[in-house]
Amino acid sequence: MIRYVHSFSSFGTPDRLLLGGKGADLAQMVQLGLPVPPGFTITTEACRHYLENGAEPPGLQREVSRDLALLEEQVGHRLGDIANPLLLAVRSGAATSMPGMMDTVLDIGLNDRTVVGLAAVTGDERFALDCYRRLLQMFGETVFGIPDDLFAGVLDAVKAERGVEQDLELDADAVRVVVERNKALYDQHAGRPMPQDPQEQLSLAVDAVFRSWHSDRAALYRRRNGISDDLGTAVNVQVMVFGNRGPRSGSGVAFTRDPATGDLGDYGEYLPTAQGEDVVSGVRTAVPLAHLRDIDLASYRRLRSVMGTLERHYRDMCDIEFTIEEGRLWILQTRVGKRSPAAAFRIAADLVEEGWITRDEALLRVTGEQLTQLMFPRFEAPDGRKELAVGLAASPGAAVGRVVLDSATAVEWAGRGEDVILVRKETRPEDLAGMVAAKGVLTSRGGRTSHAAVVARAMGLPCVCGAGALEIDLDKRQVSVGAGRTIAEGDVISLDGASGGVFLGARRTVDSEVVQWLEGGLRDGELISAVAGLLDHADAVRRLRIRANADTHEDAARAMRFGAEGIGLCRTEHMFLGDRRTYLQRVILAADEHERTSALAQLLRLQRGDFESLLAETDGQVTAIRLLDAPLHEFLPDLTQMAVRVALAEKRGGATRLDRRRLADAQRVHEENPMTGLRGVRLGIVHPDLVRTQALALFEAAADVRDRGGRVDLELMVPLVSTAAELEFVQTLVMEVAEDVARRRGDVDFRFGTMVETPRAALTAGQLARSAEFLSFGTNDLTQLTWGFSRDDVERSVLPRYLDAGVLRQSPFASIDVDGVGSLVKSAVEQARAVRPEIAAGVCGEHGGDPASIHFFDGIGIDYVSCSPFRIPVARLEAGRAALLHRSEPAAIGSRLQAEVGTKTDSRSVTADTTRDADTVGARR
Amino acid sequence: MIRYVHSFSSFGTPDRLLLGGKGADLAQMVQLGLPVPPGFTITTEACRHYLENGAEPPGLQREVSRDLALLEEQVGHRLGDIANPLLLAVRSGAATSMPGMMDTVLDIGLNDRTVVGLAAVTGDERFALDCYRRLLQMFGETVFGIPDDLFAGVLDAVKAERGVEQDLELDADAVRVVVERNKALYDQHAGRPMPQDPQEQLSLAVDAVFRSWHSDRAALYRRRNGISDDLGTAVNVQVMVFGNRGPRSGSGVAFTRDPATGDLGDYGEYLPTAQGEDVVSGVRTAVPLAHLRDIDLASYRRLRSVMGTLERHYRDMCDIEFTIEEGRLWILQTRVGKRSPAAAFRIAADLVEEGWITRDEALLRVTGEQLTQLMFPRFEAPDGRKELAVGLAASPGAAVGRVVLDSATAVEWAGRGEDVILVRKETRPEDLAGMVAAKGVLTSRGGRTSHAAVVARAMGLPCVCGAGALEIDLDKRQVSVGAGRTIAEGDVISLDGASGGVFLGARRTVDSEVVQWLEGGLRDGELISAVAGLLDHADAVRRLRIRANADTHEDAARAMRFGAEGIGLCRTEHMFLGDRRTYLQRVILAADEHERTSALAQLLRLQRGDFESLLAETDGQVTAIRLLDAPLHEFLPDLTQMAVRVALAEKRGGATRLDRRRLADAQRVHEENPMTGLRGVRLGIVHPDLVRTQALALFEAAADVRDRGGRVDLELMVPLVSTAAELEFVQTLVMEVAEDVARRRGDVDFRFGTMVETPRAALTAGQLARSAEFLSFGTNDLTQLTWGFSRDDVERSVLPRYLDAGVLRQSPFASIDVDGVGSLVKSAVEQARAVRPEIAAGVCGEHGGDPASIHFFDGIGIDYVSCSPFRIPVARLEAGRAALLHRSEPAAIGSRLQAEVGTKTDSRSVTADTTRDADTVGARR
Repeated sequence: MIRYVHSFSSFGTPDRLLLGGKGADLAQMVQLGLPVPPGFTITTEACRHYLENGAEPPGLQREVSRDLALLEEQVGHRLGDIANPLLLAVRSGAATSMPGMMDTVLDIGLNDRTVVGLAAVTGDERFALDCYRRLLQMFGETVFGIPDDLFAGVLDAVKAERGVEQDLELDADAVRVVVERNKALYDQHAGRPMPQDPQEQLSLAVDAVFRSWHSDRAALYRRRNGISDDLGTAVNVQVMVFGNRGPRSGSGVAFTRDPATGDLGDYGEYLPTAQGEDVVSGVRTAVPLAHLRDIDLASYRRLRSVMGTLERHYRDMCDIEFTIEEGRLWILQTRVGKRSPAAAFRIAADLVEEGWITRDEALLRVTGEQLTQLMFPRFEAPDGRKELAVGLAASPGAAVGRVVLDSATAVEWAGRGEDVILVRKETRPEDLAGMVAAKGVLTSRGGRTSHAAVVARAMGLPCVCGAGALEIDLDKRQVSVGAGRTIAEGDVISLDGASGGVFLGARRTVDSEVVQWLEGGLRDGELISAVAGLLDHADAVRRLRIRANADTHEDAARAMRFGAEGIGLCRTEHMFLGDRRTYLQRVILAADEHERTSALAQLLRLQRGDFESLLAETDGQVTAIRLLDAPLHEFLPDLTQMAVRVALAEKRGGATRLDRRRLADAQRVHEENPMTGLRGVRLGIVHPDLVRTQALALFEAAADVRDRGGRVDLELMVPLVSTAAELEFVQTLVMEVAEDVARRRGDVDFRFGTMVETPRAALTAGQLARSAEFLSFGTNDLTQLTWGFSRDDVERSVLPRYLDAGVLRQSPFASIDVDGVGSLVKSAVEQARAVRPEIAAGVCGEHGGDPASIHFFDGIGIDYVSCSPFRIPVARLEAGRAALLHRSEPAAIGSRLQAEVGTKTDSRSVTADTTRDADTVGARR
Repeated sequence: MIRYVHSFSSFGTPDRLLLGGKGADLAQMVQLGLPVPPGFTITTEACRHYLENGAEPPGLQREVSRDLALLEEQVGHRLGDIANPLLLAVRSGAATSMPGMMDTVLDIGLNDRTVVGLAAVTGDERFALDCYRRLLQMFGETVFGIPDDLFAGVLDAVKAERGVEQDLELDADAVRVVVERNKALYDQHAGRPMPQDPQEQLSLAVDAVFRSWHSDRAALYRRRNGISDDLGTAVNVQVMVFGNRGPRSGSGVAFTRDPATGDLGDYGEYLPTAQGEDVVSGVRTAVPLAHLRDIDLASYRRLRSVMGTLERHYRDMCDIEFTIEEGRLWILQTRVGKRSPAAAFRIAADLVEEGWITRDEALLRVTGEQLTQLMFPRFEAPDGRKELAVGLAASPGAAVGRVVLDSATAVEWAGRGEDVILVRKETRPEDLAGMVAAKGVLTSRGGRTSHAAVVARAMGLPCVCGAGALEIDLDKRQVSVGAGRTIAEGDVISLDGASGGVFLGARRTVDSEVVQWLEGGLRDGELISAVAGLLDHADAVRRLRIRANADTHEDAARAMRFGAEGIGLCRTEHMFLGDRRTYLQRVILAADEHERTSALAQLLRLQRGDFESLLAETDGQVTAIRLLDAPLHEFLPDLTQMAVRVALAEKRGGATRLDRRRLADAQRVHEENPMTGLRGVRLGIVHPDLVRTQALALFEAAADVRDRGGRVDLELMVPLVSTAAELEFVQTLVMEVAEDVARRRGDVDFRFGTMVETPRAALTAGQLARSAEFLSFGTNDLTQLTWGFSRDDVERSVLPRYLDAGVLRQSPFASIDVDGVGSLVKSAVEQARAVRPEIAAGVCGEHGGDPASIHFFDGIGIDYVSCSPFRIPVARLEAGRAALLHRSEPAAIGSRLQAEVGTKTDSRSVTADTTRDADTVGARR
C-alpha cells in the first residue's frame, strides 16, 4: 500500500525525491536525535496525484488525521483546542530547492475562538491577533487567490488612521480592526468567510501548496533552471515554536565554520526575544553567536553539541537555524552551508587535515567557478557610489583607469605609465594592442561573446560590454552616458567586470592572492596552501592534458607558469594585427606578381621570427601552430568607411587614386557573410603561397631552434576544413616545403592535423583521419555553424530574449551544447579512432576552459583541452574533478552536471541570503 | 594461373573491369560474329602490376609473344616482315571511358626496312613514309617523352622550305626529310636512336601506355570525374586496317537511328578512299550513308545486317565505326550511341512499342537532365555571331530583349510590351518584380547559386551570371563590356543560358514543345507522346510525392498544371518584396507601440488576401506555409548606401531627420553575418506579434475559403529552428491563435511542423518530433551551415578554384552532399521516426529538383520533395527512375549515381563528338 504521509520520526534513510529536500533534512535531524519541532511530510507522490487528478489521493485525509493525532499526543495539545491551541506551519518542499517559489501558510489552527485561547496562554493579546491577521492574509492569498495588495491596503489604511508608521506600533485594538477588515475581504473576493474549522484550514492549505507547484513564477523558475515539471512538491506540516515568548527565548543562525574565510570558531548571530524573521530583517541588531554563552549557557552548550553532531554527520560546514523557546533549544533547519570561494578551498583542505574526508572528496567540494572568482582582482565593498552606466558583466575583475577612446591612445598613455580603460563602441582585432595596454575594456555594443568579451576573458582583463547608454563621440573625444552627462577622454572611471557596473572616479581594488602565487610571487598563507594542495591533487588524478591557447611567446610563458603542458592553439592570424595587417592585405590584394612576391617575403621574415621566439619559449613542450584563419573583413579595408570617404572626396573635387583603388578592393572582396566566406583552409587553397610561406617560416624556425640546442615538439594544423580533399591539398603543399627544408637542413619532425570546426568535418572525421594525425575541435565555430548562430549578431539581438523567455538556459558558447555540438564531437572522435586508433583529439576554444564542458570532454575520451592562459588553473582543477566523477559514477554524470549548472556558486555574502526560511524561526512579533 | 592477355576471340562474357571498355566491346563483337580486325587485350591487372612494381608481371612477354604469333598466323603476315609488314595499333582502354586522356601508338612495326616493304606492297611510297613519320612522332612522345612541339617544328620547317601550307602537299621526298629529322630528335633528346626492332617497339609502347595512366592530365580527369586512381588501364593491340587503299576502300560512321531526333532510317556518313580521321576532320566532304548502297551494295547490305545485330544485342541505338578495305567490311568500334534529349525520349518510347524493352527499362533510359533540356527555349544553330561577353551558364534557355538596368525600368518597359533583359551587378530580393517582368537575367557578379541564378532557375528564366567583364554605369545608363565597347540601355542582346554567351542583337529562338504541352497547349507529335508516356509511367511507379515551392497563386497554378501534388513550401517573406518591404520594415523598426500596431494591422490584411488566393488555387491539395524567414539585410536599408547618403547630405548642409533615423536604424540592425543572424524562428521569438499576425491571417483565410465551400489541407511550418524549445514557443503562440479562430469560426484543421535547416535541428530531430507533425528539410541552408559555406560568397571566391584544383567535383548546392548533409538528413529521419513513426519528411530547396539528390532522398525514405514549378516534371521523372532503381538493385545505387554524375548527357550534336577513335579507321593518307 502506498503511504502518502511520513512522520519526521519515521525509520529509514529519508528519500529526497519522495519527501523533498526540507522534509528529508528534518527527518534526518530527528534520526540524529536533535530537537526538531515535531511534524510530518506529505509526499511528492500525493502532490502528483493531486495535480493529475484534481483531487487528493483516496486515503490521504485518513493518513493526515492519524499523523496529526500522533502529533497532538506527542506535544500534548490539540489543533482547535480553545484553551491552548496547537498551531501548525504548512510549507512546500520540492526535491530540488526552489527558494521562495511556492506557497507557505503559517499559524494554521487559529480562528475567532482559538485566538482568544492563544492570547490567554501566551498572555499577549496583540501577538495572538497579529498571528491571526497573518493567517488570514497568507491563507487568503494562497487558498483563495485574494490579491496580496488588498491585505496590504487594509494594513496601510489602519496605520494611516492611527497615525503610525510601523506595524509594531499598532496596538491590540488596531490589529483587531485589521483582522476584521481582512475577514471582510473574504466575503467580497472569495464569496465565503474564512473557514473557522482548523481541520478544513489544514486540508485547504495542503491542497493550495500542491497547486502552487504550477504557479507562473514556479514554472518559470523551473524552466530557467532545467527542473522537470513532473516532480511535484512535498508538503511539511510542523508544530510552530516561538522564540519571542520572553527573555529566555530567542532565535539565531549558526555556522560550523566561517562562511567567508573557512576559519574555525563560533560564527553566526543570536537575537533574544525574537523570531527568525527578525534576525534576517534586522529590525533589531543581533549579537554575535558567542554572546549566547553569556545569555544562556545551557542552550549554548546544547547548540555547540548539535553543531558538532551535524558537521560530523554531513562531514562539511553546516548552516543551522534555531529557536530557543523558554530555555528549550529547537533546531528548525540545517543544510550544508553556502560559502565564499576562499572558504570553499580552506574548508575542503582543512577537512582533509582533520581526517574527515579524503583528498578526492575535497577536490569534489570545490569548483573551477570558485577558483575563477579567486583569480580576479575585485573592488572592496560598495562605497555608496552610484553607477555611471551598467552593461553586461563580460569578464570579471576590477579595473580603474583613465578613459581612452582608441587603441593608439591606449598604447601611448600606457607607455607613459598611465592606467587606462579602453572605451569603444565595439572592439576589432586591430584594437588588440590597445586592449593589451589597457587595464579594462568598456564597449557600448556587443554581447558576452563579442570580440571584446572573448578576448578580455582570454586575457583575464576586466570587461563590461554592451553598455547601450554610452554614446562615443570621437570628434569631441568624449562619451555621453545618458541623462545629459558626459565624461571626457582622460577622466578616471572604475569598471566592475563582475557586476557590469561603471563608476566615475577610482574605487579601491584588492589584488588576487592566487594570481600572485601563480605568477611566482606570494608563497604562503592558508588559502594558497589549500589551493595549491587541491591543484596538485587534481594534477595527480586527471586524465585530460591541459594546453594553452597562446599566440605570442609572452602568452606562452604565462601559460607555462600557470601549469600548461604545451600550446594547443597558436592563432597565426593574431600575429598580423595592428600595423602588420598591411602585410596580409598586400598579399591578398596584390595587383601583380611582383607586389605579391615582395609581400610574401616580408611575411616570411616576420613569421620566422614569431615562430622562433615561441618555440624557444615552449622548449620541447608540444606547440600546435594553426595556419592563417582570418575572416577577410578583419584584415581588409571596411567597405562602408571607404565608400563614405571616397564619396566625400569626390564631392570635394576628386578622390585620390589610392582611395579609389582601396574602395574597389573593398567592394571586390566584400562578403555578405564573412564568417562563412573566404577564410581558413579556403584562403590557403585560393592563395597556396600563403600556406607555403607559413610552413617554410615554421620549419626554418624549428630548425634554427634545434640547431641552437633547443628542443622542439611541433604540430601544424589546418583551420576550417570541410572535406578531406581540402586537407589533402594543404598536406601536399606542406610536405613539399618540409622535404625542401629537410634537404637543406635535415629533418624537422612535426605532426600534421586538422581543426574540426564545421559540422561536416565532424561528420566526416573518419575521412579526415586518413590524413590527420590529430584532431583539434574548435568548438566556437562548430557551435556557430551547428546552431546557425553568428555569435556576435545573435548574442546581441537574440540571446537576451531567448534567456528571458526560457528558450535557452545558457549560451551554447559559454558551455558545450551536449545534445547538438557535443554529439557531433563525440561521434567524430569515435569515427576518427575507428580509422586511426591512436589519433589524438583535443578541444580548443572557450569551452576548453569551461568546467561543465571539461567534464563532458573527459567523459567522451578527449585527450586534451586548450584554453586561455588565465583559465589553465581552472581547467586543471576541473579535469581532476571530472576524472574523479567519471571514476566513481560514470552513469550519473549527466544529472550531476545538470545539478551543478543549476546551482552555480553564489558569490554574494552568505548572510545576505534572504531566501532562508526565516519565518520558521517563530511567528510572534 | 593469372592470364594477362586475352584474345578478342576468347570465350566467355567480357569483363569490363579486366579488359577495359574498348577491349570488352571488341571481344563482344567478335562473339557476335562481326568482322573485327583481330587483336588481343592486355589486362588492367597487368597494368596495376606494372604501376606498383615498375616492371611488367613475369610471363607477360611470353603471353604477348604467343598471342602475337596466333595473330600473325590468322592474318598471314608478320610483324617485321620486310616484304609485307604487319602493322599494329596499341591503344589504352580503361574500364570507365576517359576519352583522349591516355596514350596511343599507331603503326607499330615500321622501321627503316619495313617502310620500304610497305611502300612496295601498297604501291604508295609517300603513304608508307607518312606512317613512319607518325610512328616516330607518337612513339617519341609516348615512350621517350620528347616534346610534341619539336616534332611539329620539324614538320613546319620542311613545309616552309618547300613553300607549301598543307601536310598533304608534301611529296615523298619531303616526307623522307621529315622522317630523317624526326630520327635525329631521338639522338638529341632520348640519347638513343628510334628502336628498329618491332618487338621492342611493341613492348616499349605497351609499357608507355601503362604509364600514361599516371599522366597529369589523366590524373586530373579522374579527380574531376571521381574515378579511382587504383584501377589502371588495359592495352589493346590490334591489326591495322586501311580504308584508303583505293576506290573499293573507305571509312564511315553509322547510327542505327537518328541521334538528333530518334527517327528510324539510315543515319551516318561514308567517305570513299579515306581513313577514319578524314571523316572527322572533314578534309573532304563525306556522303550520306545511304549513298553506300550505290557505291558498294554488298558492303552496304553487310553493314545493314551488322547494324541490326548490334541494335538487337544492345537493345538500343548504336553508333558504329567501320572501314571498308578493298571491298571487305571491318567494324572498328561500336557503342550505345549518344543522342539528343529528344532522341533519347523517342528511342526509349519506340523500343517499347517495338517490343524490345519494357516500360521500366525505357524510363531508366531517359534522365531528368534530358527532360530539362527539352523544357528550355533555345537558340537556333550558331549564326557566326561572336560573343559580346561570356559568363556562367546559370539557368538554361535562350532570351532576347532590350537591356534594362533596374527593376523599375524592366517592369515599365515590359508593361508596354517590350521584351527586356535585366542587367544588374547582382540581384537582390527587391529585384524580383524586374526578374518576373524580364525574359532573361544577366549579372556581372555572383556564382551559379547566387540570388539571380537560384531565382532564375526556379522561374525557368534564362540567366547568365558572373560576367565579370561587364561594368554597369547607372548614371550614364550603359554597360561597358571590355575592350572599350559599351552597350546602352535599350540595346537588344541575346542571352544563352546554356552556354553563358551574351550576343549583341537578336538571335532566333526555338520554343520548347514540351513546355507548350505542359501548359495545356500542343497535344500531338511523336516527342510529346514519348514524353507523356514516360512521365505517366514514372507517376505510376514512383514512391516519392512531388510538391512545388510556390509563393503566389500564379506559381501554384503553374505547379498544378505541371503535375505537382500540392505546395511544399510557400515562402511568406517573398510576399514582402518590392514595395511591400516597407510593411515589414515598419514592424521591425517601429519606434513605438502605435507604429507597430498599425504596421501589423496592414500586414494582417495583406497576408489574409495572399493566403486566401493561394488556398483557393490549391483547392484541397496540401499547402505548406512557412512563417517569415527573412534575413534582415534583405528587408532593411543598406548600411553603406545610407552612410554615403547621409555623409553627402551633411556636407551639403544637413541630412534630413528621416535620413538620420534610417541611418541609425541601419546601424542598429546591421549584422556582420545576416545569414546566421536575426532571421527565421528567431525573428518570431523576438517579435511574437509577427507569428500571431501570420497565423491569424492564415487561419482566417482558411476559414474564408472553407466557408465559401472550398477545400483546405493546410500545413504551417517554422523556419531555421535549432532547438525544440524554439519550436514549442512558436507552437504555443500558434495554438492560442488557432483556438481563438476556432471559437469564433469553428475549427480550422492544420498540421504543425518544422523546417530542418540547421545541423542542430537535424541532430536533435527526435526532440523536434515531439512537437512537429512533419519535418521539411531545407537543404540549401543545411548545406551552407554543414559546410560553413556562405553560398554567395563561396560560389564567387572559392568554388571556381576548388573545382579547378579538383578539391570538389561539383557544388554541394547543386547536388546533395551524401557524406555530410545527406548523412544528417538520413539520421534525422531515423531519429524522428523513432519518436513519431508516422511523421512525414520532405525536402524543399534546390536539391528537391536535382536528379541525383532525388535518388538519394528516395533511398532514405523521404516522403516528398518540393521544387520549383518548372522542375516538377523532372522531379516526377526522376522519382519514377529512383523507385525502379531502388527496386531492382538497392545495394548498387551509390555507384550507379556516381556513374551518372560522371557522364552527364552531352547535349552537343553527336557528329561534333571529336573524341571518337577516328584514327582506328585506317592510317593511310
